[in-house]
Amino acid sequence: MKYSKLFGRTIKEVPKDAAAVSHKLLYQAGFIRESTAGRYYFLPLGLKTMQKIQAIIKKEMDKAGGQEIVTPVLHPIQLWQETNRTNSVGFELMKIKDRSEMEFVLGGTAEEMLVDLVRKFQVSYKDLPFNLYQFSTKFRDELRARGGLLRVREFLMKDAYSFHATEEDFKKEYEKMKKVYTQIFETLGLKTVIVESDNGYIGGEYCHEFIVESEAGESKFLTAADGYAAHEDMAKFLREERNVKDIEKKMEEVDAVRGNSMEDGARLHKLPLWQQIKDLMMVDEKGNFVLAVIRGDLEVNEVKLAHLAKAYQLRHATEKEIRSLGSEPGFISPIEINKKVKIIGDTSLRTIKNAYTGANKKHRDLLNVNIDRDYKLDIEGDIALAKEGYWSLSKKPLVAKKGIEVGNIFQLGFHYSSKMKGAAFKDQKGKEQPYYMGCYGIGLGRTMAAIVEMHHDKKGIIWPESVAPYDCHLIEIQDSKGKSLAEEVLEKLKENGTEVLYDDREDVSVGEKFADCDLIGIPVRLVISKRNGEKIELKKRNSDKSELLTLNEIESRMPQ
Amino acid sequence: MKYSKLFGRTIKEVPKDAAAVSHKLLYQAGFIRESTAGRYYFLPLGLKTMQKIQAIIKKEMDKAGGQEIVTPVLHPIQLWQETNRTNSVGFELMKIKDRSEMEFVLGGTAEEMLVDLVRKFQVSYKDLPFNLYQFSTKFRDELRARGGLLRVREFLMKDAYSFHATEEDFKKEYEKMKKVYTQIFETLGLKTVIVESDNGYIGGEYCHEFIVESEAGESKFLTAADGYAAHEDMAKFLREERNVKDIEKKMEEVDAVRGNSMEDGARLHKLPLWQQIKDLMMVDEKGNFVLAVIRGDLEVNEVKLAHLAKAYQLRHATEKEIRSLGSEPGFISPIEINKKVKIIGDTSLRTIKNAYTGANKKHRDLLNVNIDRDYKLDIEGDIALAKEGYWSLSKKPLVAKKGIEVGNIFQLGFHYSSKMKGAAFKDQKGKEQPYYMGCYGIGLGRTMAAIVEMHHDKKGIIWPESVAPYDCHLIEIQDSKGKSLAEEVLEKLKENGTEVLYDDREDVSVGEKFADCDLIGIPVRLVISKRNGEKIELKKRNSDKSELLTLNEIESRMPQ
Repeated sequence: MKYSKLFGRTIKEVPKDAAAVSHKLLYQAGFIRESTAGRYYFLPLGLKTMQKIQAIIKKEMDKAGGQEIVTPVLHPIQLWQETNRTNSVGFELMKIKDRSEMEFVLGGTAEEMLVDLVRKFQVSYKDLPFNLYQFSTKFRDELRARGGLLRVREFLMKDAYSFHATEEDFKKEYEKMKKVYTQIFETLGLKTVIVESDNGYIGGEYCHEFIVESEAGESKFLTAADGYAAHEDMAKFLREERNVKDIEKKMEEVDAVRGNSMEDGARLHKLPLWQQIKDLMMVDEKGNFVLAVIRGDLEVNEVKLAHLAKAYQLRHATEKEIRSLGSEPGFISPIEINKKVKIIGDTSLRTIKNAYTGANKKHRDLLNVNIDRDYKLDIEGDIALAKEGYWSLSKKPLVAKKGIEVGNIFQLGFHYSSKMKGAAFKDQKGKEQPYYMGCYGIGLGRTMAAIVEMHHDKKGIIWPESVAPYDCHLIEIQDSKGKSLAEEVLEKLKENGTEVLYDDREDVSVGEKFADCDLIGIPVRLVISKRNGEKIELKKRNSDKSELLTLNEIESRMPQ
Repeated sequence: MKYSKLFGRTIKEVPKDAAAVSHKLLYQAGFIRESTAGRYYFLPLGLKTMQKIQAIIKKEMDKAGGQEIVTPVLHPIQLWQETNRTNSVGFELMKIKDRSEMEFVLGGTAEEMLVDLVRKFQVSYKDLPFNLYQFSTKFRDELRARGGLLRVREFLMKDAYSFHATEEDFKKEYEKMKKVYTQIFETLGLKTVIVESDNGYIGGEYCHEFIVESEAGESKFLTAADGYAAHEDMAKFLREERNVKDIEKKMEEVDAVRGNSMEDGARLHKLPLWQQIKDLMMVDEKGNFVLAVIRGDLEVNEVKLAHLAKAYQLRHATEKEIRSLGSEPGFISPIEINKKVKIIGDTSLRTIKNAYTGANKKHRDLLNVNIDRDYKLDIEGDIALAKEGYWSLSKKPLVAKKGIEVGNIFQLGFHYSSKMKGAAFKDQKGKEQPYYMGCYGIGLGRTMAAIVEMHHDKKGIIWPESVAPYDCHLIEIQDSKGKSLAEEVLEKLKENGTEVLYDDREDVSVGEKFADCDLIGIPVRLVISKRNGEKIELKKRNSDKSELLTLNEIESRMPQ
């Protein structure tokens, strides 16, 4: 390809909202352009890289026995209603009607579509397991798009769905996919952490995200030296005992003219924060009240709380709602709270004695409150947010990290097959059984951005060979002799299947050509100049050393 | 690939609405499944074929200097408003709003998007011409989907857009693309007729469809022995002279108690149909009246009429509307018709004298009506429908044909660049000029269906080698010896890069395997059987002959 003919040149300016390095560099180097916020054009260089990423994913998926298919983009809404996903997905779902008023969903993921496809066939236990995948455009009506390709509203995704006779069989595929994903990301030049994640309303223990550690990412996770890695939403930690050996004192109600904060309470009673009980009044999507209670030095993790509450969405109760329950903002207490409130408590409440909290009345607190004796929980469990410095379950300190989620794998279990009619296979006895399912996704655009976040320097991108848009970048330093040698090199390399980007521009300085070459980030730079005679200078993008080589030597260095 | 593991087996039933052979066979052979009417799943076999078609198109487009990009699926509606396409496209356009009430169009074609992309760059005359193309899902809210992949509502399309400094430069690209398309379809095993077509509201002489002659298609076109080939919508023909040498007689109004049809008039006046004037009262999208007048033996072509009327849409006037103009259904006449009616007449009116027509009054006709003397046309031109048997302009009889439109190429001219702000390049003098554009499309699914329509027999599909999902179909006739040889053949062929579909099923008869093999239509069948010892039977799908060959001989026969 001649650079003078390439559509989408380099540019010095950056988009004014560009904060992430990958956003800036992919824009400047001529890989992407924004259409509307979160929706991108891929220019020729960008699409070539995307296609290489896609080919690598396809190769590994096929090797692992995956079979590629493709579903329509418009999913009939009836399918999503069968599984109640029209309610559970929320605002991110985009819907559209056709001229006959038939309603569709713009696919965000395709579980229902796959089940719908599979149930068109007579599936027997002999046909299982299988893993079907597709590359297709997905839509998420995100509240905010950010970071170029890091969080978008429309993107190419590889989504795979596996079908199994049993959970045991699924587990094997799950472990296989873990390896396949690790291999894919390694080939793409990405080191990933496999992080335990929250599986939303489906739940279950099989749910992992593949995260590339990066400050540009928005996935927060915690790791420990024992190998533990879990998403902030569900990371577990040890609740260390506090004054649990103390003798339980008599509960008493006292005056408490104080502000509404936790710190106000601690100051007034001259007691540590951890001895206080934190009370959060929440409301679920059906209007039910949930009171979260937790040790005062910990924070409530609303994802964990929603799971225990079996709620799709939780919001904080208003002051008016709190008063309607006969309580008082800043003075809520699990003791003698309105009976219609469901009390969910964290296990940390078992690590303290003689706690203090509000008395459901303005400026009145309770002292020496003890669990079981003074208040009971409707549900007890883990609703606390893990933080850096807390201990992992095996007593190693947790370390907080940020990263880019490039892939995820998770169980679907019987969630879809039990809800969708006819989503069954015939077992050995000829009886219909729902299949056990798994799901495996990779966002290609975000992966591309993650590669740039990991592989760049001040001058530009440094593409790994596997995904570079071209194998080498040929620059000729203006003179007639150089020109003919450049054409010869170009022809020869093309014959061997080497993909060459040849900067043939005549109105541009050598310095500019070198700068563009570094910005675009093709792994190998070849320079032809009169000074070097018949020899060609080879310099790798990720090295400062250059070598003078003959054309034959150059050929042998190129990827086959 | 082992057939026992392939997702999407053959089936005997056909969908009850399947009329087209390609619909039946692609369904039965396990290539496609319908999601909703006009929206299809591609199963593994179907997707493999689609990808081969895509690769062939890509290769030729790249060779011709095309550069692949991709645009978002959701096009901001503002772009379509800039060019007024939200009005001109009509019902087929699907629109959607995001959570912030921003409105989008689901892309049917991407002219505005491409112009929007290109105008983000400083394009100079030195950068021109270029041709950008994409493969992406397109949406058309068709009134009726039919024929499986022949007319759908969602499909993969290759759409290319070229940008030029001048019309002359565009012409070169246009002729190049004609050759590229011919080559693409030839490689795909399709013989195409290049048919002059109607370019809608853009107009201009550069507009051709690539049509595969087939009764399953819905494109009607006419050809002549002089090489002429034109779509029914715009085919030209010679208006032969009738009684044009006759002396003009005096016009007279007579009683005409008759029915409303053309034949009623001819019967009453005992005159030939061709001597009658046919009057069609139409209404455009703005409510303006258009009267089409034409020789009585010809039919009005509403596409031609709409062009002359400069209307997006025309409909027949109601009886009430006709009477509101002071006329009478069945007795309309161009003579003394209400002045707000625009009269558009066909050139055929010049081939007759002393014509007869209605008198704008019930049961009254006019005789001896002559053009210019008795009535004047606001617009005179070609508004007649060409038919088989009519003469081409070079006096060869026209032959009516039906076919499947698999591709089209057409000028966009300045249509988009003149309407969209900033859609310009800098010329040699540094002055901004709109670019001249061309457009080039191929529908991949319909192309796949056309291949099946052209290449099948009673037993099933006969894929051309270039697009077959696998190179060969290996069948082993059940015995343990056969099994080991089959595995050996499989391994050896795979090593050479030959793609093999191996029917390893154990619970299926040989007859059934043969039938499935013929149905699926892979070009080469290999049969391993004890009877043949170490030799392997090779039979091509498109031949009845079979040969016994050694494994080495088989290898040399396979595509490299």
